[in-house]
Amino acid sequence: MIPNVGIVVFDGAEELDFVGPWEVFAMATRDAPTKSVHLIAEDAAPVTCAKGLRVLPDCTLSTAPRLDILVVPGGRGVRRELENQALLGWLARRAEDAVWVTSVCTGAGLLVRAGIATHKRVTTHWSWLETLRGIGSCEVLAGVRYVRDGKVVTAAGVSAGIDMSLWIVGQVMGIDAARETRHMLEYDPAPPYAADV
Amino acid sequence: MIPNVGIVVFDGAEELDFVGPWEVFAMATRDAPTKSVHLIAEDAAPVTCAKGLRVLPDCTLSTAPRLDILVVPGGRGVRRELENQALLGWLARRAEDAVWVTSVCTGAGLLVRAGIATHKRVTTHWSWLETLRGIGSCEVLAGVRYVRDGKVVTAAGVSAGIDMSLWIVGQVMGIDAARETRHMLEYDPAPPYAADV
Repeated sequence: MIPNVGIVVFDGAEELDFVGPWEVFAMATRDAPTKSVHLIAEDAAPVTCAKGLRVLPDCTLSTAPRLDILVVPGGRGVRRELENQALLGWLARRAEDAVWVTSVCTGAGLLVRAGIATHKRVTTHWSWLETLRGIGSCEVLAGVRYVRDGKVVTAAGVSAGIDMSLWIVGQVMGIDAARETRHMLEYDPAPPYAADV
Repeated sequence: MIPNVGIVVFDGAEELDFVGPWEVFAMATRDAPTKSVHLIAEDAAPVTCAKGLRVLPDCTLSTAPRLDILVVPGGRGVRRELENQALLGWLARRAEDAVWVTSVCTGAGLLVRAGIATHKRVTTHWSWLETLRGIGSCEVLAGVRYVRDGKVVTAAGVSAGIDMSLWIVGQVMGIDAARETRHMLEYDPAPPYAADV
């Protein structure tokens, strides 16, 4: 199955939170006959991300196509979006039809506030574990890369969205497709300056 | 030292090739009093990346500020840019004043063609090693995450730009700054579906 993926962005979304999943899903579906990864914002205006990168959405909450996979990034804009009933309502409705509903970093707060992750096991950025516990009823796990509970998958901070998205590719398109995507992205990470060196 | 970082983009630049370094350098310099990471394109028009993401540049080849670190991404647009004398000439001139000149993935081809990496040891995406050997006089290494030769640092495919950028942060701002940046990005990668599982 080639999934239709919707990645939600808003002012203050953290860049790598959503471009990591964008790259993984776009690479995995690169041979699809039609566009399968969509950048979705509340309106068509340019979005200014947390670190200043400006991106143009492909569609809006009103014009977004049917979506199999939802991705909600984090970033400092999340605090404002936690009060955005238009976005929260849209997420709750679209989550019903989606196969997988995912978040990266502090984006987990939006899944909890929208009622999508109520009573579920979730994770978020290490600095936000207590904050997330205060947002709604959920079981917040620390020290994990990503957590799956039913169709909700929440990733830890920023770069964890890459690992989570590869895992989802494997679930939806098969493990060989996930491995080939990883190979195309040459994702054999080697972070420098390990703590014990 | 808080470096001024210039990330060059063009139609067909691969998204994660440049957003990985963008995120690393922007996180490392997030407390700087002025903007220190700049997205640079030939002109001010929106840039359509390799997988369809549209981004707005911060400045153009003409208006870019002084730059300590240059980052050149890869992507299918590289084949066209290999013939773009305006860009190649700009890269060659700016490389003279820069402290570090870097590429990700097939962006190495532009450093070689611009004369910046002539006779140097370089690397690129695994699928492009032979192609790079044909572009100009250089020693192409396989199976390495990134290669430093003088002030030129070339990374392997796509995701390797994250590791390379963290290494550069350590060289320019100190190893503690690099480790703290890595912690903020929660960059403890755990790729799923290892080949032997």
